[in-house]
Amino acid sequence: MLQMERFYAQRVKDMRGSDIRDAFKLTEEPGIISFAGGFPAQEAFPIDLFQEIFQRLFQEDYAGLQYGPTEGLEALRRELAAQLTAEGAPCSAESIIITNGSQQALDLICKVLLDPGDYVLVEQPSYVGALNAIGNYQGKKIGIPIDECGLRLDVMANRLKEMASRGQHPKFIYTIPNFQNPTGVTLSLERRRGLLELAKQYDFLIIEDNPYGELSFGQEPVPHIKTMDNEGRVIYLGSFSKILSPGVRVGWLAAHEALVRKITVAKQGTDLCSTTLGMKIVLEALHSGKLRAHIESLRIMYRRRRDLMLRALSAYMPEGVTWTRPEGGFFIWLTLPSYIDTKAMLPFAITEQKVAYVSGTGFHVDGTGQNTIRLAFSQAAEGDIEEGIRRLSRVIRERIEVAM
Amino acid sequence: MLQMERFYAQRVKDMRGSDIRDAFKLTEEPGIISFAGGFPAQEAFPIDLFQEIFQRLFQEDYAGLQYGPTEGLEALRRELAAQLTAEGAPCSAESIIITNGSQQALDLICKVLLDPGDYVLVEQPSYVGALNAIGNYQGKKIGIPIDECGLRLDVMANRLKEMASRGQHPKFIYTIPNFQNPTGVTLSLERRRGLLELAKQYDFLIIEDNPYGELSFGQEPVPHIKTMDNEGRVIYLGSFSKILSPGVRVGWLAAHEALVRKITVAKQGTDLCSTTLGMKIVLEALHSGKLRAHIESLRIMYRRRRDLMLRALSAYMPEGVTWTRPEGGFFIWLTLPSYIDTKAMLPFAITEQKVAYVSGTGFHVDGTGQNTIRLAFSQAAEGDIEEGIRRLSRVIRERIEVAM
Repeated sequence: MLQMERFYAQRVKDMRGSDIRDAFKLTEEPGIISFAGGFPAQEAFPIDLFQEIFQRLFQEDYAGLQYGPTEGLEALRRELAAQLTAEGAPCSAESIIITNGSQQALDLICKVLLDPGDYVLVEQPSYVGALNAIGNYQGKKIGIPIDECGLRLDVMANRLKEMASRGQHPKFIYTIPNFQNPTGVTLSLERRRGLLELAKQYDFLIIEDNPYGELSFGQEPVPHIKTMDNEGRVIYLGSFSKILSPGVRVGWLAAHEALVRKITVAKQGTDLCSTTLGMKIVLEALHSGKLRAHIESLRIMYRRRRDLMLRALSAYMPEGVTWTRPEGGFFIWLTLPSYIDTKAMLPFAITEQKVAYVSGTGFHVDGTGQNTIRLAFSQAAEGDIEEGIRRLSRVIRERIEVAM
Repeated sequence: MLQMERFYAQRVKDMRGSDIRDAFKLTEEPGIISFAGGFPAQEAFPIDLFQEIFQRLFQEDYAGLQYGPTEGLEALRRELAAQLTAEGAPCSAESIIITNGSQQALDLICKVLLDPGDYVLVEQPSYVGALNAIGNYQGKKIGIPIDECGLRLDVMANRLKEMASRGQHPKFIYTIPNFQNPTGVTLSLERRRGLLELAKQYDFLIIEDNPYGELSFGQEPVPHIKTMDNEGRVIYLGSFSKILSPGVRVGWLAAHEALVRKITVAKQGTDLCSTTLGMKIVLEALHSGKLRAHIESLRIMYRRRRDLMLRALSAYMPEGVTWTRPEGGFFIWLTLPSYIDTKAMLPFAITEQKVAYVSGTGFHVDGTGQNTIRLAFSQAAEGDIEEGIRRLSRVIRERIEVAM
């Protein structure tokens, strides 16, 4: 067989597989309680709604089986524009493009914006898929630390100043302002305003990724950054993966119309169009009037799982371990004493205590985070959460005692 | 609003929208007979089969609604590997990855293989979507002319020699060996062998795109180039868009396992996974045992449309116009006298004779082809084909007479 290496493009060197994905393989063994996978709960998919939609899918036309427009079905784009407008960010169908989940939105944005070596600001820690998309286009990632109110704007302002003094200008920042992956934290209103100010001052774009925003556990929603943007600086990403189904592969972005036109041209050469079948299903789900109630039931379910996990953490975790208290979404973030390496600890957790998690290192762009852990409560069976946390605390306790 | 241009990457300059797409807008007016759109016939989608599949989709599990593996559902990859093996190209599930139609396969291949300025050989004329994918990664396209037996290997050999003398080495050639888009021609067995020899001699890869191969009108199929490849030099692309539905967005590629692993990593950052719903539907369609009979009915239908179009061309076209006689697929290719500009002629065809086609220029990489036309018989209503060709012949006749 041929040696393939000589055929590869330069960018292949910057491509990374996800640690999380490798971790999944370990968690499939029987008896393991896994907090690793951050997928939506499979048992909560609205099967009845899907069955209902399937029955009327071909009543009007067969367009769901044909190629569709590259930018997505017009009717769906209109619905999404109306929704975002109602949420305070006025926009038209022309500023919307449908993508294969938000991940493709990230890919297309990087394709249109990033030259090799361009700087991109990211939250540290941040979503691995975004880091991969940026890496695929050889962007240079600059991590900005976050605290319980999201991005540390003070650190960011200093960093931007330093960068500017070296002639370095970031193209954009990537942020997940609501119930962030992996930490669960929400960017405060004040900081949203401050972030937009910094973006204006240093002239970069903002990617506001909001896959979890509708899965709030009760707090009033904080307005999107996009609602404060009157010049098309914010690219807003939405998705049906967490509120309906990831399998239909329907995400979307709202942005400056000129940018949406460029992204549409890029998408044409990328995959012609997203799945019309998926788009038709989403449109029918919106028209059914049943999606709101479904999302409400998801909120209740995920909140219960979060509560169970927080309670177990309080009950079992030893001193020296801290964690976030998310107001929505799928994730809790643990910080252990700095001497514990969570990646090295994982095989022991799995084999000795039969509990799995994702080590935080993969969410960091600078090799740090080795003492952090992402726990997903989204897929955990409710009866398993307490026991899983108890097991995890045993693994951690052991390491703390050894160190003492 | 912001001026966006300053944020764009270099590669945006090489991105092109498709002429075909713009042409579609013109063809939507009532009364127009259009041979422009090369989509599958909407009225032939197997609705009953889809309804049947929907009914059993959630009987075993809900995996069709969840995220799936980046490389695609294992069961589907096994089926496709078995199919390709039966067709004479032995391969395993590990050498298969599922993509959002073949267009995404092209995108991912370019992502993994092409640095800006890398050379790529393409048939001239060739599929616009492939030219766009290569353009998105700033590949340099070298057009190799084709005749009624496909690629002119003599011209290609000379070109490769010249290029080598200048130190230029193509990364790959892109070919559609069966019922090519846009010409309908098929690459002969002898030339398939010769092409592989040239690829070995000059050490480049072959992308063998085969979306129309199963829509043969009676001839024995010519073996895939992949069947002659014992070193993983050929990347074979398959698709369910033309034989089941483009809306489910399921294409696939078979290649060297090492390359498939790299493409999988690239896809992870591109869109995480293709639609599991689409993949489940395709898998069910394969298991139903009804897909073979459906494809047979498509062959009969498309052959009838081709026959009607060929007959009308013979009956109405003036001297000086020539065309291909495809043995399968969707397209016939017309060559008019060299002084006729088919792009300039199109608005007259539409407004004066109410007939639409695609000008051949967009399929050429060097600005030639202005006297060529692609006619799609795939979507034309059978009752309209004769009349449409009669109208087109009138537009052409007028221009020939004026020139005389």
